[in-house]
Amino acid sequence: MIIVMQSRATDEQVHAVERRIKDLGLKPHVSRGEFRTIIGAIGDESLLREEFFAALDGVDSVMPIMKPYKLASRDFHAEDTVIPLGGLKIGGKTITVVAGPCSIENEAQFRETATAVRNAGAAMIRGGAFKPRTSPYSFQGLGEEGLRILQAVGRQVGLPTVTEVMDVRDLDAVARYADVLQVGARNMQNFRLLTEIGHLRKPVLLKRNPAATIEEFLMSAEYILSEGNNQIILCERGIRGFDHSTRYTLDLSAVPNIQGVSHLPVFVDPSHATGRRELVAPMALAAVAAGAQGVMVEVHPHPDKAMSDGPQQLTPDAFALMMRELAMIATAVGRQLHKPK
Amino acid sequence: MIIVMQSRATDEQVHAVERRIKDLGLKPHVSRGEFRTIIGAIGDESLLREEFFAALDGVDSVMPIMKPYKLASRDFHAEDTVIPLGGLKIGGKTITVVAGPCSIENEAQFRETATAVRNAGAAMIRGGAFKPRTSPYSFQGLGEEGLRILQAVGRQVGLPTVTEVMDVRDLDAVARYADVLQVGARNMQNFRLLTEIGHLRKPVLLKRNPAATIEEFLMSAEYILSEGNNQIILCERGIRGFDHSTRYTLDLSAVPNIQGVSHLPVFVDPSHATGRRELVAPMALAAVAAGAQGVMVEVHPHPDKAMSDGPQQLTPDAFALMMRELAMIATAVGRQLHKPK
Amino acid sequence: MIIVMQSRATDEQVHAVERRIKDLGLKPHVSRGEFRTIIGAIGDESLLREEFFAALDGVDSVMPIMKPYKLASRDFHAEDTVIPLGGLKIGGKTITVVAGPCSIENEAQFRETATAVRNAGAAMIRGGAFKPRTSPYSFQGLGEEGLRILQAVGRQVGLPTVTEVMDVRDLDAVARYADVLQVGARNMQNFRLLTEIGHLRKPVLLKRNPAATIEEFLMSAEYILSEGNNQIILCERGIRGFDHSTRYTLDLSAVPNIQGVSHLPVFVDPSHATGRRELVAPMALAAVAAGAQGVMVEVHPHPDKAMSDGPQQLTPDAFALMMRELAMIATAVGRQLHKPK
Amino acid sequence: MIIVMQSRATDEQVHAVERRIKDLGLKPHVSRGEFRTIIGAIGDESLLREEFFAALDGVDSVMPIMKPYKLASRDFHAEDTVIPLGGLKIGGKTITVVAGPCSIENEAQFRETATAVRNAGAAMIRGGAFKPRTSPYSFQGLGEEGLRILQAVGRQVGLPTVTEVMDVRDLDAVARYADVLQVGARNMQNFRLLTEIGHLRKPVLLKRNPAATIEEFLMSAEYILSEGNNQIILCERGIRGFDHSTRYTLDLSAVPNIQGVSHLPVFVDPSHATGRRELVAPMALAAVAAGAQGVMVEVHPHPDKAMSDGPQQLTPDAFALMMRELAMIATAVGRQLHKPK
Repeated sequence: MIIVMQSRATDEQVHAVERRIKDLGLKPHVSRGEFRTIIGAIGDESLLREEFFAALDGVDSVMPIMKPYKLASRDFHAEDTVIPLGGLKIGGKTITVVAGPCSIENEAQFRETATAVRNAGAAMIRGGAFKPRTSPYSFQGLGEEGLRILQAVGRQVGLPTVTEVMDVRDLDAVARYADVLQVGARNMQNFRLLTEIGHLRKPVLLKRNPAATIEEFLMSAEYILSEGNNQIILCERGIRGFDHSTRYTLDLSAVPNIQGVSHLPVFVDPSHATGRRELVAPMALAAVAAGAQGVMVEVHPHPDKAMSDGPQQLTPDAFALMMRELAMIATAVGRQLHKPK
Repeated sequence: MIIVMQSRATDEQVHAVERRIKDLGLKPHVSRGEFRTIIGAIGDESLLREEFFAALDGVDSVMPIMKPYKLASRDFHAEDTVIPLGGLKIGGKTITVVAGPCSIENEAQFRETATAVRNAGAAMIRGGAFKPRTSPYSFQGLGEEGLRILQAVGRQVGLPTVTEVMDVRDLDAVARYADVLQVGARNMQNFRLLTEIGHLRKPVLLKRNPAATIEEFLMSAEYILSEGNNQIILCERGIRGFDHSTRYTLDLSAVPNIQGVSHLPVFVDPSHATGRRELVAPMALAAVAAGAQGVMVEVHPHPDKAMSDGPQQLTPDAFALMMRELAMIATAVGRQLHKPK
Repeated sequence: MIIVMQSRATDEQVHAVERRIKDLGLKPHVSRGEFRTIIGAIGDESLLREEFFAALDGVDSVMPIMKPYKLASRDFHAEDTVIPLGGLKIGGKTITVVAGPCSIENEAQFRETATAVRNAGAAMIRGGAFKPRTSPYSFQGLGEEGLRILQAVGRQVGLPTVTEVMDVRDLDAVARYADVLQVGARNMQNFRLLTEIGHLRKPVLLKRNPAATIEEFLMSAEYILSEGNNQIILCERGIRGFDHSTRYTLDLSAVPNIQGVSHLPVFVDPSHATGRRELVAPMALAAVAAGAQGVMVEVHPHPDKAMSDGPQQLTPDAFALMMRELAMIATAVGRQLHKPK
Repeated sequence: MIIVMQSRATDEQVHAVERRIKDLGLKPHVSRGEFRTIIGAIGDESLLREEFFAALDGVDSVMPIMKPYKLASRDFHAEDTVIPLGGLKIGGKTITVVAGPCSIENEAQFRETATAVRNAGAAMIRGGAFKPRTSPYSFQGLGEEGLRILQAVGRQVGLPTVTEVMDVRDLDAVARYADVLQVGARNMQNFRLLTEIGHLRKPVLLKRNPAATIEEFLMSAEYILSEGNNQIILCERGIRGFDHSTRYTLDLSAVPNIQGVSHLPVFVDPSHATGRRELVAPMALAAVAAGAQGVMVEVHPHPDKAMSDGPQQLTPDAFALMMRELAMIATAVGRQLHKPK
């Protein structure tokens, strides 16, 4: 950590910084330049916080040298993390396509969708049972009945399942019925939920909050990792932007950006990011071209009758077309879609 | 709700929209212009959702006429909501200043701070027991021990208390010890927590999420209101911005903007918004000048030794100076700081 | 245009809106709902501005039905615009790769780069002569000498050239030396420059401003189109975002989003968007997968010695590798890179 | 400047950085920590650019210690800059209110407005002659005829005038007719215009671009300062935000933030920032409470008939009311409105 003093900082203020560094068990290293005095803290920076110094008199700014996450970092774990799930390997060179309706509305609707997306090549099925809705007056999901349908249909079509957990009190139920737990964008910094999920030994799909920097996103993964669960899939799903012709702004450069600093697999959800059906396939293709290890898209047999998110759900036919294009893009970048045996 | 058809929409597509409106119990009203056909839905728009139409073929865009929130709206409740709390009246023409340390570190530190801010004129004391921290390696708060200190010191200094609840499982404990419950910015869309808090009959301080529009903020208040709890204080605490010389970007025009559409009291937290001590007082003054009904600021007897958020905490002396200036600003805008008897 | 009245609007206020609509030559159409009165203006909306109504008493909001741009719209011109330039066809199904150094530093450096990128398959060469630099103390470009080098080298390697014009006073010189004029992101709303460029009959590459909505971007194109120049290439180059690990946030969904509403070709510049060399190739591939009709990347023979933007410039070898991957992605989406005869 | 090497950087890469520092005339200072090697460049950092190092192999990140602006900095010029203009002193403890219509529409309209705002206490009048409009089909201003009216009315009411210059070719004319030149938000990085204005010896009101960081804003001021013109007023007028219930997001903490690092006077324009009349006065009061040295607001005798920006223009009566409140806020913060003799 490097502490830059103000140009008018006194010797006493410099000494106070040195003392603070020593108190914390590191070694101060003072460099007096022509314009500024700069103090380095030599040793294990993970013992430090910027705020230990920023509040001292005479300090202009504090610059951390180390990343604040450790277990999520590629410095700590150089190889790509690959998460085995049944016959599926998530991460590395394989591309995993997750598909299904926004909400599980009833067993017939979910089975129809799941069958269609499996036949088109999806490797995992998704469907919401507990739905985070902006309005208290909107459909809130079927709850545990939805979980039951999820599991039953997953077994019928022979694919693993993913669904969102919104509340620590539902964690046991969701973990019992689903193969992968999703932490939604609004819960990315629900730290108590992250900690509880860290105690499980199940894969987690962690969505990026629309206001989160990449560092904050990885710090949320660190919460889960630090409790011992390293089966984490990161999912970019759009950040808050100023152009409202799309719901969010898909931050696709986050894919190679995260992959440079972290070993965890990165997925992209173009359905929630754009909120518009006609943009989903182009952005799914772009995600794979950019190196994403998976995409998650919403599919509904009758989007115009969907109980939530109709405008962004693909029809099964549109999904099947997208899968054929995705396969070609995957080949072009030296990867391949998961092929079930 | 107004549905604008694409310029090439067919008659059949227009009919489908009309049918959908009728199915939902409203009356369609078709207007064929030179370039576009436009369909109004006459009746109770609260029965509709944009997505019921946006997913239909031939639809270009859907424009709601009514606001999606009702109980939070000034149309529903024209007068300012004033929340009584002991001798304090929150909202209306009174300005409530809430102060205290970021974290309750121990009883002595909290008592020293609480006494100082009460003497300088604060009307309520704050202090974190459960701390939402970006890093799992940062100090996470004293937990229930912190709540106990909060209550004990609150009684000693004779001021009501506010503290954050992060987890539904802590709700009973927090409600038992604190006078006002805070929902933090990261939990603004933790809908299950909002629903549970709606069942209580205690004041809630609801912070705006850094990525939330004002409409989304009011929809979160609506979750609480729709369960019967109308003692809600809204708190602007900075939105995510692109200039990192401050932690967040304080959106001060949100104050008169919200007050125009909602009856709920609006507070401002300049400490978290700016993250820099020297900007706190100017922005607190600006908040009151803009019409805020309260400000919440962090105060610590020794900010350079604080266990969290040192750089943004005021010393008791700086706080006392700010209070004198605030009183003058309040008078200038025809309001006044709460005066304890 | 639809004018929504406030819930308490008086009859007189409704009449005032009707009169205003008639004064402007359109027909008012009043619909009194249960909660609100809504007034449609039937006729040529291009005669209206929202502000003609928003300032009237009793008006709650004004919703335009038509897009504010006309000539840039696909409603006006359904087919993709294809711009012929020598043997090159820009737009439609062809993918055009533009490459070259950030700045033209001297003839040898530019010739070396231009030769290398041509050999690797670039269809056009770029190089800055007038450089918009944030700091007055940074290298500002070679000026007219740079233009001379641009033209000379362009002829030697047999490729068309593009360079930025920053000032109306340089327009004649730039138009004389270069084949395509670039309007930089900072000048996207330099309306006087746009108007002058509209008088030319040369292709223009118009970059999106980092704060511009897509509608504002197309309105800037409309300035050029309305003066008679329809040879416009739109270029997404990153919007202002909150995560500073990249320079800007590449808004890749802008590509299919713009292509849905406009007929103009859309390019992507991943070099300026990301500011980091290792992210350029992944985002160039993603751009083509998303449907972009061109990419523009910075290449320098010795990026570590570049006089500007070194960290984001590719080496010629890295560029050649990217070109091979781009060709495969283009094939995967049914398009192809421009092939010189 | 501090250069942080990657954890796996080789000795040769470290040496290359050292050589580069020496070549640039500074002294390298290498510190090998447990995890990283860090290299400081001791000497005059203004000779360096981050990009000189960021492009070198093995470099992780580059951290400047000095601010990139010099003449605009309070380190260079500790006292507040006060700009004399006739009897007016802009900056320091005086608060200057600038008012007038968005556009000068004709002499009668401008004279009526100017007289009204002078009588209510405005210290300067504004009015647009050259209007930057998003749409080529909107009213573009009266041009030089508008400048003539501006000057004539300014003399009649006895107040200095400010108007925008959009084009270097208009600079002589605008400088001849107006007392203060305005550089609009869209031209904040029109570097050629800034340079030309730097050659004048007239006050300039420089508006912040909606996507500009505070550092970029001050770099634009530096362009003008570095040419010898130090009569610069900085004006915050809203940044691009995600909530579209206001036109822009007023970044009010920019006022004390800029005043901490720069000596230049800071104004606020709440009219363009909010775009809504009812938010103008609250935000003007807040601006002065936050320490702004001036506010600029739009006033029109008949906002509902204005040729531009009607919804955000105050009536003369509303302006007069705001002035009375502003005077009280100014007193509360120990400042005062300019009082003409």
